[in-house]
Amino acid sequence: MEATSIINQLRYLAKWSLLASLVAVLAGSASAFFLVALDVATAWRESYRWMVWLLPLAGFAVGWLYLQLGREVEAGNNMLIDEIHDPKKVVPLRLAPLILCSTVVSHLFGASVGREGTAVQMGGALADQLTHVFRLRREDRSLVLMAGISAGFASVFGTPLAGAIFGLEVLFVGRMRITAIYPCMLAALLADQVTRWWGVGHTHFLSAPLGAPAGPLWLALCAIVAAGVVFGLTGRAFATATHGLAAWMKARIAYAPLRPFIGGVAIAVFVGLAGAVGGGLEVHRYLGLGIGPMVEAFRVPLDWWDWLGKFVFTVGSLGTGFKGGEVTPLFYIGATLGNALAPLLQQPFALLAALGFVAVFAGAANTPLACTVMAMEMFGPEIGPYAALACAAAYMFSGQSGIYRAQRRDAAR
Amino acid sequence: MEATSIINQLRYLAKWSLLASLVAVLAGSASAFFLVALDVATAWRESYRWMVWLLPLAGFAVGWLYLQLGREVEAGNNMLIDEIHDPKKVVPLRLAPLILCSTVVSHLFGASVGREGTAVQMGGALADQLTHVFRLRREDRSLVLMAGISAGFASVFGTPLAGAIFGLEVLFVGRMRITAIYPCMLAALLADQVTRWWGVGHTHFLSAPLGAPAGPLWLALCAIVAAGVVFGLTGRAFATATHGLAAWMKARIAYAPLRPFIGGVAIAVFVGLAGAVGGGLEVHRYLGLGIGPMVEAFRVPLDWWDWLGKFVFTVGSLGTGFKGGEVTPLFYIGATLGNALAPLLQQPFALLAALGFVAVFAGAANTPLACTVMAMEMFGPEIGPYAALACAAAYMFSGQSGIYRAQRRDAAR
Repeated sequence: MEATSIINQLRYLAKWSLLASLVAVLAGSASAFFLVALDVATAWRESYRWMVWLLPLAGFAVGWLYLQLGREVEAGNNMLIDEIHDPKKVVPLRLAPLILCSTVVSHLFGASVGREGTAVQMGGALADQLTHVFRLRREDRSLVLMAGISAGFASVFGTPLAGAIFGLEVLFVGRMRITAIYPCMLAALLADQVTRWWGVGHTHFLSAPLGAPAGPLWLALCAIVAAGVVFGLTGRAFATATHGLAAWMKARIAYAPLRPFIGGVAIAVFVGLAGAVGGGLEVHRYLGLGIGPMVEAFRVPLDWWDWLGKFVFTVGSLGTGFKGGEVTPLFYIGATLGNALAPLLQQPFALLAALGFVAVFAGAANTPLACTVMAMEMFGPEIGPYAALACAAAYMFSGQSGIYRAQRRDAAR
Repeated sequence: MEATSIINQLRYLAKWSLLASLVAVLAGSASAFFLVALDVATAWRESYRWMVWLLPLAGFAVGWLYLQLGREVEAGNNMLIDEIHDPKKVVPLRLAPLILCSTVVSHLFGASVGREGTAVQMGGALADQLTHVFRLRREDRSLVLMAGISAGFASVFGTPLAGAIFGLEVLFVGRMRITAIYPCMLAALLADQVTRWWGVGHTHFLSAPLGAPAGPLWLALCAIVAAGVVFGLTGRAFATATHGLAAWMKARIAYAPLRPFIGGVAIAVFVGLAGAVGGGLEVHRYLGLGIGPMVEAFRVPLDWWDWLGKFVFTVGSLGTGFKGGEVTPLFYIGATLGNALAPLLQQPFALLAALGFVAVFAGAANTPLACTVMAMEMFGPEIGPYAALACAAAYMFSGQSGIYRAQRRDAAR
């Protein structure tokens, strides 16, 4: 055991402790600001329901902003993943305010989008500015970006471990780079603390601890695996539909700002029609993040097609170019789909909602481990093995592709 | 989304559900039997302390057994890892009784060895018998072996998720093969259930839930990282010392059974001398698994050199050829080292003992994720981020090599 190698490791430790702490302060503060802005935007939209009529204009504004300022960062999460695999040029700082404003505008006027994309991109863009300050080398840059992704994810959802593992797991389908564990872990852990330090909390979905699955264990496990398969196929259908709609729009409409404009028109018309038909169909629940309906999914039976409504609204929003991310809508789709499957599979609502919450996302993003750990952080450690099984099954059925096109693939899956 | 691909996936699901269940029944039952045998052997040795005088003969017997029946399986865990990377021939079934008997004999007469090697090798050997029964192809064989490792590890420690991740993580240093997640996860989860179904339980180390770290968070995190570095260096020293002693013995003593004989003589003489000097030094605590002292490490301050005693006895036992495994002694070394560091770092005993428990092993085995999840399964989810940080730091300082020589390495670490 040579002393020089230990001294080198200590220098590495000091360097990455400093860099990861800086990444955490930047990304955690950005997430805190973003979460507060989202809360305000959501409260506003829920108070003034007519704002959805302006969604086409909001879409045009978002598309126009990206056309003027963001052509090189349009790819969002995929651009970050590409930069980590093959570092070329520093992510421009303006990506952070650009994605922040676009997401808040998207939510304010009722697009059905998420928030992890925004947090991850702000984390990545802010982290990458350290490249200038410290004149980082190529390999260090890719580690800083990974730490930024981990920090953004951890702080926006309040799940430090899941955030760290997400940053390690999202780069590849089917394998994982563990060497970056220290920077990612420290950045995730601290970023979550920074967000909490700003006084920003996270939703608690469970009203009581999750119980064990119902019935004999082998039958419960069969039910969980079956649900996992359905969750995985749903995640796959979501990724396919979103990419498909985006490609279809691009092929037909050359002027980018028109695409989210048309998406906004479609959503507003749909909301209007549903309102005119009246009564049964409460479509406002499908706008924005949908935290409220998600909480319901853990407690009471919902309409069996509730997940499908969110699916359509989200594909319509993201596929036409609104900004924010896929994850929170996937949580919604999973939780409500789990809610719908619970009576069929004779399992408790809360358990199936919790499993769907993480497993649809695990399938769509090819990140079964991060999602398993996320389930333990959000719903308690007892769910660990069940979540792992559901996420593994979902991952198996989610197909070769996913929501992040830039993920590298092994030859064998 | 083509129907044929989904049908193929369903067939894959059915096949691996069946195979993983069979692996789980075999490995879980073997672990249950093994744990009961270990309990009996430990109780016996603690009642009849003179049995340690027979340790040289026990060592000779173990060495002779392997010389007659086990030359091709001598490499133990490393042989399994090699077979997964490069499948050649089926692991002989006799490995299971061979490692079982050798381990129980080693424990009965007081060698300081573990139990994960035995559980993992029984799991692997039993699982590999399915290769004949189902005429599995090469790739399937390597999956079955991974499932066997996961099942053995999960059932012997009662930590299903950590077992599953261990099976995925142990093959490589620095990356992880996630494709096998479903078979490994199902086998681990069910094997743990099978062991419990046989009425075999596991030690609970905590008497009360772990609290938060003491003092301001940033100072506590510095303390945890510093402890992680020490844990990693200790794991590294352990791997180096064990391999070094084994190589040294092999170069000097050609007749294999003589090596554990000499190791047994050394240990017995040491125990005798310590008894003659009397009073202070209670060396019987270093024999066998050492569950009792480990439980103490979570509750009361111990002698600062307690970890060193276990270190010496274990290197002396494993390096000369006793059988069992490294993990439980590494738990002991880590927990008591954490106990010794706690007052220096001004942190609670239980927290530092829990972190040392997993982090020395994480460093020595290059499995930081499995160890993080193990900490959550054994000590509660709150420890997750701290365990992750300690394991990541330990992993960073554990060097290029580890207790499992057959692990493949990436070029860059």
